[in-house]
Amino acid sequence: MLEELEKKLQSEMPICTAMGIRAMSYDDARLAMEMPLGINRNHQSTAFAGSLSALCTVTGWGTVFLELQKRGLTGNIVIRRGSIRYLRPVVSPQIVARASALDPAEVDYFFELLEYKGRSKIAVAVQIVDPEGPLVRFNGSYVVQEYTKKTP
Amino acid sequence: MLEELEKKLQSEMPICTAMGIRAMSYDDARLAMEMPLGINRNHQSTAFAGSLSALCTVTGWGTVFLELQKRGLTGNIVIRRGSIRYLRPVVSPQIVARASALDPAEVDYFFELLEYKGRSKIAVAVQIVDPEGPLVRFNGSYVVQEYTKKTP
Repeated sequence: MLEELEKKLQSEMPICTAMGIRAMSYDDARLAMEMPLGINRNHQSTAFAGSLSALCTVTGWGTVFLELQKRGLTGNIVIRRGSIRYLRPVVSPQIVARASALDPAEVDYFFELLEYKGRSKIAVAVQIVDPEGPLVRFNGSYVVQEYTKKTP
Repeated sequence: MLEELEKKLQSEMPICTAMGIRAMSYDDARLAMEMPLGINRNHQSTAFAGSLSALCTVTGWGTVFLELQKRGLTGNIVIRRGSIRYLRPVVSPQIVARASALDPAEVDYFFELLEYKGRSKIAVAVQIVDPEGPLVRFNGSYVVQEYTKKTP
């Protein structure tokens, strides 16, 4: 399931490869993506905010990509807005961002609207945590349009 | 004035170099930074949202860096929160983000608080525009602490 997402990132979003961003796991419809601190460090040897924001943005994007893929759909997914809070510095050598579970009722409504209007939007929350709690909290709103049923 | 910022980015935020992010100009206290579309393109050959967010984040960061530098200060500048709206796709081969002018009264208050408390925060707005208007609107809130007067 993650293979197609991984392929898409690597072939079509080259900076994700430069950042070392990889799809890690997809359990209970919760996508986790990771990147190393190394290339993404800042002037204080903690993670660069711009890289954290990119990791969260693409984790939300990937969540929508996988929801479409599960239903045999592809579409044009774009982020419309994002907000992020940097609560504490991120220092772990491998940084993991994990999407929150989507509300099933919201997902149903999202696909109903997509079928009816050919365009729909959905919010995805993503967090980076350590054992003490959240380090980064992100919320993104993603729009899907021009969707098509994939030929099997 | 931009040299020190450029040096800082290149030596201490390696992913900015990978993205091709460069300080471009600083006119009327408005910092402009740029990056090429090439490495920062997405699956639709428009700019990857994560790269746009990183460019805006670092343009806000650089604005605060230069305000400190003008006063012979250095400090630990970190972004606390950011919000971004992607209004239209960014397709130009060279992408420019420009900070809005800071309100002089807010800057005064920022430095008063910094001196008094050793810690202060300031909001910076950044935009990416084309001749038709804004493409991306970003607002970041930056905190400065552990500041010191640079020895000349």
